[in-house]
Amino acid sequence: MELGMVGLGRMGGNMAQRLLRDGHTVVGFDPDAAARKALADEGGGTADSLQALVAALPAPRAVWMMVPAGKITDGTVEALAGLLAPGDVVIDGGNSNYKDTLRRAQALAAKRIGYVDCGTSGGVWGLAEGYSLMVGGDQAVVERLRPVFETLAPAKDAGWGHVGPVGSGHFTKMVHNGIEYGLMQAYAEGFSILRHKQEFALDLHQVAQIWRSGSVVRSWLLDLTADALGKNPTLDGIAPWVADSGEGRWTVAEAIDLDVPAPVIALSLMARLRSRDDDSFADKLLAAMRNEFGGHAIRKA
Amino acid sequence: MELGMVGLGRMGGNMAQRLLRDGHTVVGFDPDAAARKALADEGGGTADSLQALVAALPAPRAVWMMVPAGKITDGTVEALAGLLAPGDVVIDGGNSNYKDTLRRAQALAAKRIGYVDCGTSGGVWGLAEGYSLMVGGDQAVVERLRPVFETLAPAKDAGWGHVGPVGSGHFTKMVHNGIEYGLMQAYAEGFSILRHKQEFALDLHQVAQIWRSGSVVRSWLLDLTADALGKNPTLDGIAPWVADSGEGRWTVAEAIDLDVPAPVIALSLMARLRSRDDDSFADKLLAAMRNEFGGHAIRKA
Amino acid sequence: MELGMVGLGRMGGNMAQRLLRDGHTVVGFDPDAAARKALADEGGGTADSLQALVAALPAPRAVWMMVPAGKITDGTVEALAGLLAPGDVVIDGGNSNYKDTLRRAQALAAKRIGYVDCGTSGGVWGLAEGYSLMVGGDQAVVERLRPVFETLAPAKDAGWGHVGPVGSGHFTKMVHNGIEYGLMQAYAEGFSILRHKQEFALDLHQVAQIWRSGSVVRSWLLDLTADALGKNPTLDGIAPWVADSGEGRWTVAEAIDLDVPAPVIALSLMARLRSRDDDSFADKLLAAMRNEFGGHAIRKA
Amino acid sequence: MELGMVGLGRMGGNMAQRLLRDGHTVVGFDPDAAARKALADEGGGTADSLQALVAALPAPRAVWMMVPAGKITDGTVEALAGLLAPGDVVIDGGNSNYKDTLRRAQALAAKRIGYVDCGTSGGVWGLAEGYSLMVGGDQAVVERLRPVFETLAPAKDAGWGHVGPVGSGHFTKMVHNGIEYGLMQAYAEGFSILRHKQEFALDLHQVAQIWRSGSVVRSWLLDLTADALGKNPTLDGIAPWVADSGEGRWTVAEAIDLDVPAPVIALSLMARLRSRDDDSFADKLLAAMRNEFGGHAIRKA
Repeated sequence: MELGMVGLGRMGGNMAQRLLRDGHTVVGFDPDAAARKALADEGGGTADSLQALVAALPAPRAVWMMVPAGKITDGTVEALAGLLAPGDVVIDGGNSNYKDTLRRAQALAAKRIGYVDCGTSGGVWGLAEGYSLMVGGDQAVVERLRPVFETLAPAKDAGWGHVGPVGSGHFTKMVHNGIEYGLMQAYAEGFSILRHKQEFALDLHQVAQIWRSGSVVRSWLLDLTADALGKNPTLDGIAPWVADSGEGRWTVAEAIDLDVPAPVIALSLMARLRSRDDDSFADKLLAAMRNEFGGHAIRKA
Repeated sequence: MELGMVGLGRMGGNMAQRLLRDGHTVVGFDPDAAARKALADEGGGTADSLQALVAALPAPRAVWMMVPAGKITDGTVEALAGLLAPGDVVIDGGNSNYKDTLRRAQALAAKRIGYVDCGTSGGVWGLAEGYSLMVGGDQAVVERLRPVFETLAPAKDAGWGHVGPVGSGHFTKMVHNGIEYGLMQAYAEGFSILRHKQEFALDLHQVAQIWRSGSVVRSWLLDLTADALGKNPTLDGIAPWVADSGEGRWTVAEAIDLDVPAPVIALSLMARLRSRDDDSFADKLLAAMRNEFGGHAIRKA
Repeated sequence: MELGMVGLGRMGGNMAQRLLRDGHTVVGFDPDAAARKALADEGGGTADSLQALVAALPAPRAVWMMVPAGKITDGTVEALAGLLAPGDVVIDGGNSNYKDTLRRAQALAAKRIGYVDCGTSGGVWGLAEGYSLMVGGDQAVVERLRPVFETLAPAKDAGWGHVGPVGSGHFTKMVHNGIEYGLMQAYAEGFSILRHKQEFALDLHQVAQIWRSGSVVRSWLLDLTADALGKNPTLDGIAPWVADSGEGRWTVAEAIDLDVPAPVIALSLMARLRSRDDDSFADKLLAAMRNEFGGHAIRKA
Repeated sequence: MELGMVGLGRMGGNMAQRLLRDGHTVVGFDPDAAARKALADEGGGTADSLQALVAALPAPRAVWMMVPAGKITDGTVEALAGLLAPGDVVIDGGNSNYKDTLRRAQALAAKRIGYVDCGTSGGVWGLAEGYSLMVGGDQAVVERLRPVFETLAPAKDAGWGHVGPVGSGHFTKMVHNGIEYGLMQAYAEGFSILRHKQEFALDLHQVAQIWRSGSVVRSWLLDLTADALGKNPTLDGIAPWVADSGEGRWTVAEAIDLDVPAPVIALSLMARLRSRDDDSFADKLLAAMRNEFGGHAIRKA
C-alpha cells in the first residue's frame, strides 16, 4: 500500500526500506536532506516538508511517524492535524509514553483522523529480520494497515498483532522494554560474576556460545552478548556508562500505579542511573556516617 | 563409547536414552526398579547396585552421576571411590555446589581416579533438543569423554565446551542458573504489569507470541512462557509458590564473596523466598509500627 | 496568634489542641460534628462551614488545612480562594504532593493570597511531643506564622524550620517518608531474621530493648518497635498487610526523575505492594515456567 | 571485678578505660607497646604476652578478647586454650561470625573453659555513652560477668542483656549490623534526593536538624548525619567509597539460609560493593549490548 513516513533516521529509514523491498510505495520526509537522499536511492519518494508529504499521498492517507518521543512527536501530530483530512490515519511507531498517545489520539479523533500506536522492537536488526510490532487502535483502521504490518514483521503472520485499543500498543512496548532492562541486567550480573572468578580464568565468549545452544538462558540478547564478547572479550575501552531511553522509568511508574511489585525492573533501571554517577552523594554520606560512629577512615576524593 | 549412568530419574534417564540413540553403550543404576526397567526397554544395560555397575564396565571406566546434589552425591562418590580403579573417571552431571566438587575431586585424585564436573542445562527438553554442557576437568580426561559430550549436546560442536579446571563447570552452571532466576523474574514482573492493566484487556498469550518473533526480548524462556499462557491464560489453579533448588542462593553468596553487586539475581531469589511465606513476620511488624506511630489501623489476621 | 483549622481529625484535632494549650486562639471546622465538639471541649472555637470559619477570623487571616491529600485539599483550596482576601494565608499541613502544592500556590497567588506548605511529622505522638515541621513559602509569610510553628514543634527553636520556597516543605516531607519506609523495612527484615533463628529462641522484645541504649541502630522507630513487641511479642492476630499513603511512591518517582538511585526506598515500597497481593500473578508465572522447562511440580491453588 | 583484656585498640582500649573508671581491675595485653602504655596511663595493669596476662589474673580468670575477627581471634583462642584452666572464661567482644563462635566455644568446652560471646555496638562513642551489649552463653557464666556488663553498658540495667546460648550474642549483633546497613542506606538515598533537587536549594544540615526533633525518622544515626553535614555540608573531599566489615554479608547469607527475604539489607550491602567498583564490568556489558541491538553509542573509557 501507499504510506508516508515521517522520520528517516536509523529506525524510520530502515522501515521504509523494508516496505519498499516488499513492493509498497513510500513517500518519506525528514528535515535532513541526506536521509531523504538515502530513501530516494532505495526507490522511495521524498518530500521536503510535511505539507508536501501529505500532498503526495492519496486519500485516505496513512502517515507513519518514526520520530523521537516527546516534543517532536507532539509537534508532528499538531502539524499533521492541520494538514490531514477526516478518514486519514496517523501511526506512531516510536517509543511514546502511552499516556501521550491517548492524549494525541483524542485530539486527532476530534477531527475524525485515526490514530494507531505501534510499539516497535527490533533495533538495527529489524531491516533484515523484521520488527516485532504491538499495535493499538480501532479494529477497522488497524485492518486497513494490515499489509504494512505484515511486511514490517518478521513474517506475515508472526511477530505482530493488534493487542487492543489505542494506547495499548505503546503500553505493551513499554513493558517489553522494562523486561528488556531486567534481562540485560541479569546477564550483565552473571557475566560479571564469571569474570571476577579469576582462578577459573573463564573465557566469557566461550561460555556465551555454549549457552546459546540447549540452555535455559538462550535468547537473542545472549546471541548479541556472545557477539560483543567475541569482538572484545574484556570489553576494553568501553566506559561503564549505560543510557536509558525512558521506557524503563515509565514501566516502574506504571508498576507502582498498578500496585504491582517489580523489584527486578526497578533495580535494573537504578543500576543504570548508578552507572552514570561517578561521584555518588549517597556513598559519600555513608562514608561520612561510618567515620562518625566508628571512626572508620574516609578515603579522600 | 561405554558409560555407566548412576541415577535414572528425569534427567539421568533422558540422558541415557539420548546416548543410546546415538550408538553409545550405557549401563545404568538406580535404586528404583521401574527406572532401571525403563532404561532396559530403551536397550540399555542395567545394574542393581553400584558394584554391579562398576563390574559391568570395561576399564578405564567412566561413570556419570546424575543424582540430587548434596548427601546423595557424597554417598555415591564415596562408594565409587571404593569400587573404581586408578585411571577411571567419575563425572558429576548434577547441580552440585562447585566447592563440593573441588573437595570430591581432591578425594578421588588421591586414588588417581579422575573427576569431571559437567554443568547441565536443558531440563526435560534435553532429550529431544540436546543439553547445554559446561565441562570442568583435566584436558586429557575431558578429551576422552568427548564422544559423550558431543552426543548429549544439541550438536557435535555446539552447546558444550571445556570451560576450565575441575569445579569450573559447576561454577559456570551455578551462574547460569542465577541468570535464569533474573530472566524469569523479569518476564514475570512484565506480564504481571500487563495483566493488571485491566483497561487494555490484553491477551497475554498473544503478546508473548508477538514478542517471540523479532523482538529484543525473544528467548527460549519466552517460548515456554507463551506455551504456558496458551494452555492457561489466567494461570488458574496455580499457586503463587515458587521453589528454588540452590544455585540461586550460591550465586548470591558467590557474588558477595567476589564483591560483585548482583541486585537483580539477589532480588529474584528473594521474590521466591517471599512467595513461600504467606504469614510474613516482617510485614506484620511493619503494620504494627505504623499503628504505633500513626495510629493506622491494623488488619486482623 | 489566631488561626483557623480546617480538618479536626487525628492530626488536625491534636494540633489544634496543642495550639490551644499554648495560648493560641483556634477556630476549627470539620464536617463531622463530633470532631467540632471535641475541639469546643478543649476551648477552641468552631465553625460549621468554611464560610463561617473565615468570617470568624480577623484579617489578615491564617487558615491551616489538615485534610486528606488529593481531591479534598483541592476542594478546600478552591473554596478558600473564593472566601479569603488578599493578604490572607493558607497553610497546607497535610501530605500533599509538592507538585500539587506548587499548582495551588500559584492559583492563590493570582488572588494575592499567600500559601505555605508545612510537611508535618510526628503522628499521634505530636500532641505530647511536638511535631517536626518542614516549612516552605515566602519568608515574610512564614515569619508571620512563626508563633504557630514554635508551638507545634517540640521546642521553640528545634524541630521546625523554613527550608525553602513554597513546595519545598512538602518535598522535604515526601523524602522524609521515603526514608521512613527504608528504616522500617530494615528493622522489619532484621527482626524477621532473628525470629526465624529458632535454635536461639530469641526474645525479640528484649533485643529491641537492649538496642535502644547505646547501639548504633537506636531510634524512635526502634522505641516504637520495642513497644509493639512488648505488647505482642509474636505479633499474633496482625495480618501481614501493609498500607502505604503515597509519599513512598512519590519519592521513588522523584528519585528516578532526578536520576538518583534509591534501591532501598524503592524496594521498601515494593515490599508493601507485595504484602497486599496474596495471589501474585508473577509468582504463578514463575511456577508455570519452572514446570515448562524442568517438569517441576506446581502447587495447586 | 578483675578482667584481662586482650586487644587495646580503638574498641578494647576504650572498654578497658570505661571499666577502670568504674572501679574494676583490668590487666591488658596488646602487641603494640604504645597501646599498653596508654592503658597503664589510665591506671590499668599491662602484660607483654598472653602468658603474662594469664599469670597476672586470679582464678577463676575472665579474659575479654577485643581483637579483629577471623584468624587473630582463632589464634588468640588457641593460645588461651593452652594457658587457661578449667573454670576460667573467655569472652569474645568482637564482631565474630556466630558460626566461628560456636566452633570456638565447643573447643574450649572440651577443656572446661567457658565461652561467652558479647556482640558490642557503640563505636567510638561507647567510652562516654556506654556500649550496647548482646550477650550469649551459659547462665551461670554470664551471671558471674554481670558487673562487667553493667559497667560497659550505658546503664546498669539498660543496653545489655543475656539473649541466649553461646553464639546468640554474635548472631544478634550480626543482624544489628545488617539493620544498620539498611538504615544508613535509607538516609543516604533520602539526602541524595534532597541534594539533587537543585531548584529548592535545600540546606541538608538544616533538614537533618529539623528531623532530629519530633520526626518519625529521628535516630542516633540521624544525629551523626547532622553532625557530618554540619561540618561538611557538601561532603567535599570525601570519596564515594564505602567499606564493609563482614556482618552485612553474613546477615544476607543467614537470611537466605533461613528463607527470609531481606531485600533492603541485601541491596544496602550491594550498594557498598558497587561504591568500590569504578570500572563495572556489568555496566560495560550493558553498554555493549545496547550497541549490539540498537546501535546505541558507547562511551569510550
